[in-house]
Amino acid sequence: MTITTSSILKDVEKIRKNAPLVHNITNYVVMNTTANALLALGASPVMAHALPEVEEMAGIAGALVINIGTLSDPWIEAMFKAAKRAKQRQIPIIIDPVGAGATQYRTRTARELIETYAPSIIRGNGSEIMALCEQGQTTKGVDSTSASDQAIDSARSLAQEFDCVVCVTGETDYIVSQKGIIQVKNGHAMMPRVTGLGCTATALCGAFAAINQDFVKAAAHAMAVMGIAGEMAGQNAQGPGSFQVNFIDSLYQLCETHIKELFNA
Amino acid sequence: MTITTSSILKDVEKIRKNAPLVHNITNYVVMNTTANALLALGASPVMAHALPEVEEMAGIAGALVINIGTLSDPWIEAMFKAAKRAKQRQIPIIIDPVGAGATQYRTRTARELIETYAPSIIRGNGSEIMALCEQGQTTKGVDSTSASDQAIDSARSLAQEFDCVVCVTGETDYIVSQKGIIQVKNGHAMMPRVTGLGCTATALCGAFAAINQDFVKAAAHAMAVMGIAGEMAGQNAQGPGSFQVNFIDSLYQLCETHIKELFNA
Amino acid sequence: MTITTSSILKDVEKIRKNAPLVHNITNYVVMNTTANALLALGASPVMAHALPEVEEMAGIAGALVINIGTLSDPWIEAMFKAAKRAKQRQIPIIIDPVGAGATQYRTRTARELIETYAPSIIRGNGSEIMALCEQGQTTKGVDSTSASDQAIDSARSLAQEFDCVVCVTGETDYIVSQKGIIQVKNGHAMMPRVTGLGCTATALCGAFAAINQDFVKAAAHAMAVMGIAGEMAGQNAQGPGSFQVNFIDSLYQLCETHIKELFNA
Repeated sequence: MTITTSSILKDVEKIRKNAPLVHNITNYVVMNTTANALLALGASPVMAHALPEVEEMAGIAGALVINIGTLSDPWIEAMFKAAKRAKQRQIPIIIDPVGAGATQYRTRTARELIETYAPSIIRGNGSEIMALCEQGQTTKGVDSTSASDQAIDSARSLAQEFDCVVCVTGETDYIVSQKGIIQVKNGHAMMPRVTGLGCTATALCGAFAAINQDFVKAAAHAMAVMGIAGEMAGQNAQGPGSFQVNFIDSLYQLCETHIKELFNA
Repeated sequence: MTITTSSILKDVEKIRKNAPLVHNITNYVVMNTTANALLALGASPVMAHALPEVEEMAGIAGALVINIGTLSDPWIEAMFKAAKRAKQRQIPIIIDPVGAGATQYRTRTARELIETYAPSIIRGNGSEIMALCEQGQTTKGVDSTSASDQAIDSARSLAQEFDCVVCVTGETDYIVSQKGIIQVKNGHAMMPRVTGLGCTATALCGAFAAINQDFVKAAAHAMAVMGIAGEMAGQNAQGPGSFQVNFIDSLYQLCETHIKELFNA
Repeated sequence: MTITTSSILKDVEKIRKNAPLVHNITNYVVMNTTANALLALGASPVMAHALPEVEEMAGIAGALVINIGTLSDPWIEAMFKAAKRAKQRQIPIIIDPVGAGATQYRTRTARELIETYAPSIIRGNGSEIMALCEQGQTTKGVDSTSASDQAIDSARSLAQEFDCVVCVTGETDYIVSQKGIIQVKNGHAMMPRVTGLGCTATALCGAFAAINQDFVKAAAHAMAVMGIAGEMAGQNAQGPGSFQVNFIDSLYQLCETHIKELFNA
């Protein structure tokens, strides 16, 4: 299992051509930036969480992204309802267990979603992935207290238990599946200082999974694009504010030259 | 019916002088950017959706903007309550039927709001306006699948049925009323790649309608200002990220020179 | 009571070193920008409002920030629950009475929170602080209709009644406590044109209070950092859009040189 400059480019172009509809049930903090990232890349985002409409929306989407960042009971019900419909239609489900390990409510909800509707891809930071494996890991809020490589065993065990792809992001990103591990070493030191870039990584998994049924590659392509756009953004950033602006611009500009120059596996 | 450089300028100056309070019940995705757009233009935005306070807030506002972008049942109740109070006070109501056509929940809610409290202005993209006319149009999520000119008949029929102004936005914006049609041809190709600019257009209708009781002109002025600020923003944008930043700056900077140079009807 | 260049710097460095977890129950409009401001400064923000988890989250946080900007009944319940846990743990509670005076719902909720869990710091604009004192003050939406100095008496009376620090922000910021008044005169004319900078000021109080138990100084340091970053941001801003981007960058860049050059008490 590997990804290459040309496999990344091919999927980016497919997203730009097809503009897949990505249905997000995500948190309040990142809705705007996530939608902008998907639009900048070329996908078509929709945010919908109301019980009366989530099934219908999941019924027309190319992928469903569930992010538990600002959870509440009615939203959990909507997440399950949307996931059920997505499963029936066999469109990819991507789960972001934001803050798993910080509160039992988050850990439990993420686990239940995963156990009920084995997702195509789970994307989290080191602490979150370890918390999902019930290794008694606690997270400090929503920021990781563990490096991504510490979570490889947990990722492997989750990937096996649910036959899914597990993406652990950090300085190195590990895309873990039963077929092995792909590493992506792109990224920029300022990324953890911008809120919601982890959530954006998850949303991009949705865009790539909507146009590539090989979910290992879809996830790895998404991580590569995140990291490359991050490096592009960092080149002229004065801080996390301009970094965020540049990052959206970079997703829009990203072309063969950038991928060839920067991709680092 | 026409609008001119000087009629646009006069209303912009009036907004800057009076800073009308615009009460928004809008979606989670765009709350921040909408509030910033209203503030940059010179209006005073407030976001309030709680049942215990929406009537009181609509009771002190100069206009009420209702946007169904991230709908849920309690919010619908609040929308009706606020609209009732706005109607009693005879302040303008502006409705944005985000994603009408994508789910029945959205189409139905938008229709019911319009039928119950005939708004002053409805603003939507081509697909949404056609969906409101029950032409069996389906929308792909929240992005339009129809050009604005395809929706002119639907707009005309809505304008007549509810004696209101219908704004169909797209490459050309059509401001449709029983008095005829005004076209605004400003704008920039990058605008559909920034989330919430349609919602911002609707919110600006609220600011203009709060200070100009001729709602046809208010809507047309709002569309002209959107488009002109969009063209200003596009001049130095590297992508949708910097476009969004420039757009807010442009609403703030906008003066006679820009309007004279760029207005295109 | 005074603060100095070196006392400000010391606390900024402590935040960067300790990255205190700041638990925010805040409004939809500013969640993203508030989180980004806290991250840019060096703190670790978490947004959580669900009844099943707020106690647990408040149980691991270094400070609790409650902001009533987009209120609803379930959120009020969560605010009380989180505040109770914060009080038990003796971590600082910071309250932002957004829009107090605009609706009774907001005024009443803010008063009840303050009366029940005497917070460490209350931060508001002139109108809001006067409304909390039941002086019959009405606010126009969420923007202040009174200068900060008009609210000094109200601030003094609140500070005495609840033995807390009251921060009234405006052209001059007044940090009022039973020990006297500290003035901070930093800031930039464009700040009221960016949504949520008041909320950001409150959130920064949370970061400073988490690492400095002298809450008068914590609040004053937060206001100084807001104002200094605002002046830095204003130097190259073309409008409120670029101001907001520069402001986040400035919180990240802020160092001894900036504080020495710009601090104005």
